[in-house]
Amino acid sequence: MNEHKSINVGIIGATGHTGEELIDILLRHPRARIAGLYNTSDEPRGIPEVFPRFLKRINAVCRRPDMREIARECDIVFLALPHTVSMRFVPKLLAAGRRVIDLSADYRLKNKKIYESNYGIVHKDSSNLSKAVYGLPELYRRKIKDARLIANPGCYPTAGILALAPLFAAAGVEKGSVIIDAKSGVSGAGKRLRESMMFGEVNEDFKAYKVNVHQHAPEIAQELSKLAGSSVEPVFVPYLLPLNRGILATAYVRRKKTFRMNEEQAVKLYRNFYRDEPFVRVKDAGSFPRLKDVAGTNFCDIGVRVSPGMIIVIAAIDNLVKGASGQAVQNMNIMCGFPETSGL
Amino acid sequence: MNEHKSINVGIIGATGHTGEELIDILLRHPRARIAGLYNTSDEPRGIPEVFPRFLKRINAVCRRPDMREIARECDIVFLALPHTVSMRFVPKLLAAGRRVIDLSADYRLKNKKIYESNYGIVHKDSSNLSKAVYGLPELYRRKIKDARLIANPGCYPTAGILALAPLFAAAGVEKGSVIIDAKSGVSGAGKRLRESMMFGEVNEDFKAYKVNVHQHAPEIAQELSKLAGSSVEPVFVPYLLPLNRGILATAYVRRKKTFRMNEEQAVKLYRNFYRDEPFVRVKDAGSFPRLKDVAGTNFCDIGVRVSPGMIIVIAAIDNLVKGASGQAVQNMNIMCGFPETSGL
Amino acid sequence: MNEHKSINVGIIGATGHTGEELIDILLRHPRARIAGLYNTSDEPRGIPEVFPRFLKRINAVCRRPDMREIARECDIVFLALPHTVSMRFVPKLLAAGRRVIDLSADYRLKNKKIYESNYGIVHKDSSNLSKAVYGLPELYRRKIKDARLIANPGCYPTAGILALAPLFAAAGVEKGSVIIDAKSGVSGAGKRLRESMMFGEVNEDFKAYKVNVHQHAPEIAQELSKLAGSSVEPVFVPYLLPLNRGILATAYVRRKKTFRMNEEQAVKLYRNFYRDEPFVRVKDAGSFPRLKDVAGTNFCDIGVRVSPGMIIVIAAIDNLVKGASGQAVQNMNIMCGFPETSGL
Amino acid sequence: MNEHKSINVGIIGATGHTGEELIDILLRHPRARIAGLYNTSDEPRGIPEVFPRFLKRINAVCRRPDMREIARECDIVFLALPHTVSMRFVPKLLAAGRRVIDLSADYRLKNKKIYESNYGIVHKDSSNLSKAVYGLPELYRRKIKDARLIANPGCYPTAGILALAPLFAAAGVEKGSVIIDAKSGVSGAGKRLRESMMFGEVNEDFKAYKVNVHQHAPEIAQELSKLAGSSVEPVFVPYLLPLNRGILATAYVRRKKTFRMNEEQAVKLYRNFYRDEPFVRVKDAGSFPRLKDVAGTNFCDIGVRVSPGMIIVIAAIDNLVKGASGQAVQNMNIMCGFPETSGL
Repeated sequence: MNEHKSINVGIIGATGHTGEELIDILLRHPRARIAGLYNTSDEPRGIPEVFPRFLKRINAVCRRPDMREIARECDIVFLALPHTVSMRFVPKLLAAGRRVIDLSADYRLKNKKIYESNYGIVHKDSSNLSKAVYGLPELYRRKIKDARLIANPGCYPTAGILALAPLFAAAGVEKGSVIIDAKSGVSGAGKRLRESMMFGEVNEDFKAYKVNVHQHAPEIAQELSKLAGSSVEPVFVPYLLPLNRGILATAYVRRKKTFRMNEEQAVKLYRNFYRDEPFVRVKDAGSFPRLKDVAGTNFCDIGVRVSPGMIIVIAAIDNLVKGASGQAVQNMNIMCGFPETSGL
Repeated sequence: MNEHKSINVGIIGATGHTGEELIDILLRHPRARIAGLYNTSDEPRGIPEVFPRFLKRINAVCRRPDMREIARECDIVFLALPHTVSMRFVPKLLAAGRRVIDLSADYRLKNKKIYESNYGIVHKDSSNLSKAVYGLPELYRRKIKDARLIANPGCYPTAGILALAPLFAAAGVEKGSVIIDAKSGVSGAGKRLRESMMFGEVNEDFKAYKVNVHQHAPEIAQELSKLAGSSVEPVFVPYLLPLNRGILATAYVRRKKTFRMNEEQAVKLYRNFYRDEPFVRVKDAGSFPRLKDVAGTNFCDIGVRVSPGMIIVIAAIDNLVKGASGQAVQNMNIMCGFPETSGL
Repeated sequence: MNEHKSINVGIIGATGHTGEELIDILLRHPRARIAGLYNTSDEPRGIPEVFPRFLKRINAVCRRPDMREIARECDIVFLALPHTVSMRFVPKLLAAGRRVIDLSADYRLKNKKIYESNYGIVHKDSSNLSKAVYGLPELYRRKIKDARLIANPGCYPTAGILALAPLFAAAGVEKGSVIIDAKSGVSGAGKRLRESMMFGEVNEDFKAYKVNVHQHAPEIAQELSKLAGSSVEPVFVPYLLPLNRGILATAYVRRKKTFRMNEEQAVKLYRNFYRDEPFVRVKDAGSFPRLKDVAGTNFCDIGVRVSPGMIIVIAAIDNLVKGASGQAVQNMNIMCGFPETSGL
Repeated sequence: MNEHKSINVGIIGATGHTGEELIDILLRHPRARIAGLYNTSDEPRGIPEVFPRFLKRINAVCRRPDMREIARECDIVFLALPHTVSMRFVPKLLAAGRRVIDLSADYRLKNKKIYESNYGIVHKDSSNLSKAVYGLPELYRRKIKDARLIANPGCYPTAGILALAPLFAAAGVEKGSVIIDAKSGVSGAGKRLRESMMFGEVNEDFKAYKVNVHQHAPEIAQELSKLAGSSVEPVFVPYLLPLNRGILATAYVRRKKTFRMNEEQAVKLYRNFYRDEPFVRVKDAGSFPRLKDVAGTNFCDIGVRVSPGMIIVIAAIDNLVKGASGQAVQNMNIMCGFPETSGL
């Protein structure tokens, strides 16, 4: 691709949280032009009307998606849609020759049955499941480069998998011992109106939800199992933090008795595993990540503590950036041959 | 009334914010017994199911109001209902001989026309309007003692009127100059599900709303006009603070040229006006109130600054306590001859 | 003790967070009279000057402690002092015949060596260590009744021990498997001026600290070991939440293979263990605690999830109430023969 | 200046809030290169050590300022220093031929006496006072273009002046009537350690401070007086909001009797005044700004309400961006002939 060529991108689902974040990132991207913004449910609305903060930055109107227009105008299409809605659009876009980055869960789980039991719906596009590449660049960069369809990872899985990949790749973990205790800001919950998400309910509160029954657990399980070479079923407990952005996930694992390692060595293992990664930062031994350092960025910060018998890994991301729209743009950069950090 | 006698109270509208706060206060009240809890819309529900925080404190079931049961069981009835709903119950309760403390706006405005244009509804019980006593003890303690029907003041009016009453009583204010700039926590907005009240919308945000068109302005106008002896129309701008409880209202008034006063004298004027009040605290000259000091209490804290030509008065209350349920219990104490601070 | 007799209490360390909370609780206590307030470092200061929120509620002056005055005026003395300071006062107060409730860590750890390595100081009053009763009423109510010296538990230990006591008492836990992931509001950190506790640092942030090296871990270990009958060393990771009050602690334990139990049975086990406890509330199966329900109360709410091989227990308390001053007053009530819930 | 030429910039005071924000903005600027970072008090420290969030973004070391190095390396120097410290550096930098953008208050007030009484210090560089251009592009763009020394406006003045400039320019205001009631997030207070800025003090609180005695009032007075052609002395009350970023300022002014205008006309007046401004957005009649829409941006959003006798104008900015570092970069863009929105 030409050194300075730009690409045209479209977003279907432009009025949700991840759509808003995509617009924000793409407006600063030197090589991407927003060619079309779409929404499945609303009447045409000017983006500055939906998001007054974009006034004087973009003047586009958000319309119902017209597949022919999209195929004509867009090189790459982001789907920032709810789970189960994306799969209505993916087959058509692929058929029209467009490359697709899907931010929903529809193509993340390779095992259709697990998807169906987990999201309570029949998968209507299983033929494309196998073509989808799981869009975690740290594990699948090479496949992403040529992919037609990216299944952009969930926010909890991004944090959980990046926290544990080096240990699983090193075959150092007792597989049955994995616990992930993960705390998320409210933007992870989307914009749906719910009593439990009112300010008066969330402010000055903290609580767990879907205790060990969250739909992101199988996604983490799938990727850790691949790295481990056999089934891993982590215990997964998510919580709602009274703040807007960020996930901080703590993973507790027991190491194999044969796998001896002190804290310095663990940090080294992590730094080596992520040595070429532009968006993973491994903290010095004794230091741990915090949400403030990753908020608004595409970074994943990781800290490691080694205790007798137990390894504790803490990973922090911005759920809307590395956990969603930033990672989607990172994938786009890889797919288009742009510098991977462009616009991020 | 006997020194140690208790009274039986009922609450209609027990599942809203002010109802919840009333329950909390009354459970600690040494002389009041919660005899019945009612709700207009829901199926019977145990209070600990509605408010898990009350588990092991009260076991009552909240039912649809049965007028005969209420008349039989309750000496005093609190109406913690939305505006326009209270007036359906008041006539029946008064007819049954019960004393009523209404926390809605239905009986606050003496001028029925202002009520109707303000709340967009016909007033269906104008005959009781004139009987209602405006339940601000600092101005109407004597009338409250014998009242059958209390119109418990709004939260903004409580702060605004207490901030300005001493100056108006001293005839020191240019009537056309009154500005009230009032900031409120979210609990003032009630529990109705609205996008604008979601955590993601309120947290890290601050904004004005109903700029100089808020329905509480006429209530403030009515009381200041009474004190002034002629019409006062304050400019009133409310704001939403990203916190749970409290109103901090700043009043700006120009003093009459003939009314000379320095800051020390102003503080003295205020302290004298409120000298016997258990719940008003006037700050030293140079000190100003903050929400933290009044949160969870029935106090109104007031600070005064005198500048050339301009007097600035800042008042702080907890909108759910002195601005609603605490003041309602203060009224109950006065009506029943209990110590005014009982349970508060 | 006479049915209606009051006791006189003193507080040394009245100007810190737990001192402030003690004053607040004791002012509402029907049987306790605050007879003296003391502070080790400051000039005499009126309490309303230190805490403007107490104006018109208490007018006492906080002075340097005078042992003779205290012995003369106070039946019971609360020490709301930093760790290592309490032990300077305890021997004198005991010698003077006063009963003492110490909110610091100075008498919690029975093993002097663990205390010394943990707090980095020589223990100067080891002779009284053995007399001190660990003030967790749910485990030691009978001893508390006659105790001369109460070591009031730490906030994390209160949550962690109450979360796990029923399982350990039932001998159901693999001892080497205990993980406690505990999140606390800022008031747990005291009032010392630190950059890390500035609003701009804490707001919209979340982070772990003292990862598996927190000084409260040995206290939890001591009590769980006692229940288990042999050494238990939990992994303990604390976090700072961007809110004022509350600890929510999640305990992960593996059950013994011989200890079979489903979720309903686990809830039953917990309800049975705490059946007579006024301040422990076990949630229904599938329900979990939240900070909002315990904030400002002396309750500990507990929820249990049973998964294959793993039991997850979540406990929530207000760190300043059940985690400090409320529990101290609960202990006082037990020591004085008052109803255990008086003032709470 | 060449179309694509870059400039080298230095920052003295790189480790404070505005320094941090400058680094963040300049790292995204297509034409500016950070050539040197300096700090007056600390030992040399790597920026990623001071601000872990900049790790993998910039690797510079922050050193004590060396005037010769700065003169050699930097085309433009930003001073992100406390008031009274900037004036130690400005004469030297100007003498060395460097252009300076000073974010402190040292060169904002043309009247040296007002500066001195306001900041309680003798002004040591009054000779450069007259050369300094007040860096509010909406009023002084032409002068900024050629300025050697920019006095970058304060955060409150930016909001207050932009709120009122169109009305004063139209000669529509009763000069004696101006009230500015301005609410700010905590980042406006800098990083100095103070009890009043601890999380536990600010969270769930709201309060006024320096009521009508704030040091920014004379700066607003100076600029409004210039626009009015005679002395204007606004009443100015600032408040601390429990959030990180943003100022929302409400201005109340009485219009001259001869100056008749309805709300639509007022909006038109504002839109006309700011019609070529890239960073001012005037809301539709009936709409008002909120902090969320300007947070992290260089925009100033303005809404206008016209009531009988009173005009209410609400303006919102991000205090660290349009109120400090963003406006500084906007000034740099103008000085260097870059597009005014570059990097912003």
